[in-house]
Amino acid sequence: MPIDPNAVGATGGPVTRRWSSKDALLYAVGVGAGTNELQFTTENTRGTEQRVLPTFAVIIGGGGAPMNAVGSFNPALLVHGEQAIELFDEIPVDGEVESRGKIAAIWDKGNAAVVEMESESVNTATGNPIFKNKSSMFIRGEGGWGGERGSGEKVVFPDAEPTHKVTYATREDQALTYRLSGDRNPLHTDPAFAAMGGFDKPILHGLCTYGFTGRALLHTLCGGDPSRFRSMTGRFSRPVIPGDNLTVSMWVDGNQALYRTQNDRGDTVLDQGVCRFDA
Amino acid sequence: MPIDPNAVGATGGPVTRRWSSKDALLYAVGVGAGTNELQFTTENTRGTEQRVLPTFAVIIGGGGAPMNAVGSFNPALLVHGEQAIELFDEIPVDGEVESRGKIAAIWDKGNAAVVEMESESVNTATGNPIFKNKSSMFIRGEGGWGGERGSGEKVVFPDAEPTHKVTYATREDQALTYRLSGDRNPLHTDPAFAAMGGFDKPILHGLCTYGFTGRALLHTLCGGDPSRFRSMTGRFSRPVIPGDNLTVSMWVDGNQALYRTQNDRGDTVLDQGVCRFDA
Repeated sequence: MPIDPNAVGATGGPVTRRWSSKDALLYAVGVGAGTNELQFTTENTRGTEQRVLPTFAVIIGGGGAPMNAVGSFNPALLVHGEQAIELFDEIPVDGEVESRGKIAAIWDKGNAAVVEMESESVNTATGNPIFKNKSSMFIRGEGGWGGERGSGEKVVFPDAEPTHKVTYATREDQALTYRLSGDRNPLHTDPAFAAMGGFDKPILHGLCTYGFTGRALLHTLCGGDPSRFRSMTGRFSRPVIPGDNLTVSMWVDGNQALYRTQNDRGDTVLDQGVCRFDA
Repeated sequence: MPIDPNAVGATGGPVTRRWSSKDALLYAVGVGAGTNELQFTTENTRGTEQRVLPTFAVIIGGGGAPMNAVGSFNPALLVHGEQAIELFDEIPVDGEVESRGKIAAIWDKGNAAVVEMESESVNTATGNPIFKNKSSMFIRGEGGWGGERGSGEKVVFPDAEPTHKVTYATREDQALTYRLSGDRNPLHTDPAFAAMGGFDKPILHGLCTYGFTGRALLHTLCGGDPSRFRSMTGRFSRPVIPGDNLTVSMWVDGNQALYRTQNDRGDTVLDQGVCRFDA
């Protein structure tokens, strides 16, 4: 049972998701926020109001995309390809969203299929759209039905030193905390399971790398103010091993930065990055 | 309004408390369990069943002790003195306990009062007692009513090298994860609040130190098997600064070990320790 290219346009939802202040705090420590970021990691520091990291949108959003409309495939051959978030409003400390999703595109890469999903979430307290998630799933072993390959559009990084470079350390046990925000895939914790997937060690959640990178962008480009963070897109290009340092290089041009995240060995792990922000 | 010594014998409860597998996992990472302890930090590692750290009893237990019967005092002058747990059964991955507590003793230390509380918890699924918590609160500025000082009984550590010595590192951001198990006192996170209490930096939760120490005892004395862990008592003697290494020295004699926990500077932070276990 292969992928069904006609699933494009299928819609799903609404899916309701609530979160608490504690969920936001747990996410923040899961993506490495620490004692210098008490606005994200505590709710009761005097003179500091709790706020929510913009990338928390990937945890509470994304609902309603009808993956089952796509047909069947081997889930072990699926990897997260790209992730984009766009924020219309700052995420409150606790709340509820209602999300509707769709299959936005399906591309035929010959030996793989790429499924693009979009989901838009409404803050049920205000009735207003709060954020949008776009993600693409890369499914090996599918494709070959003679469909379109999709755009090969790529970010062109300037031939110059980055405007900013920020390095954050992940911890060897990073995945153990991050997974408590929801993604319990044993690929990130169980050595035997990771070995079956061809990895020497459990690998870090791509969305954890995304959260570390989002913190670097937030603090460097938005002065730590989530209300200035507009959007972030990036492509997962290589696994991160928990314990790796992540260096985010940013090339700023006006209200936009191109970025990429690299590990200690100089491998790019999150590529093709674009972040938009308010001045 | 001082402490009322006649509150001894006052009872409280029942108080019901439920926990989930996720609560137990979050506690485990909060007290430093990592990738070598997947039975405590994951629920889906093949060939490994999730189990619960014995010291989780301090999180879900202790209910019903009627602190309000004790009278009024300045809570800023209260510190956790001693903590003991006794386990009658292994703590399940999720469940519910019903706890009843009492004021067991109140001692007059002249310039301070010591309030001892006991609480016994029943596993509501079985109807059987599952664990007991004893804790003492040291309240500066109280005392002086001419009451008894209480026993000065002390553990006598052997004049010999410890049988075992185990060192665990706490992290600079340790309190940020630990606090998500319930104790949100800003003394452990807010630098300004900690300064008002006379500390250069926020200090680690005493019960977090207790949890680290409990892991060392469990792995060293019980082969990591919580069903062999019978009891643990200790006295908080000095604050721990997040980031300190904790070295637990154990003197084993049969089914009992005396222990103490020290920081990098050789200061004892958890003293007068006794742990009982099954062979």
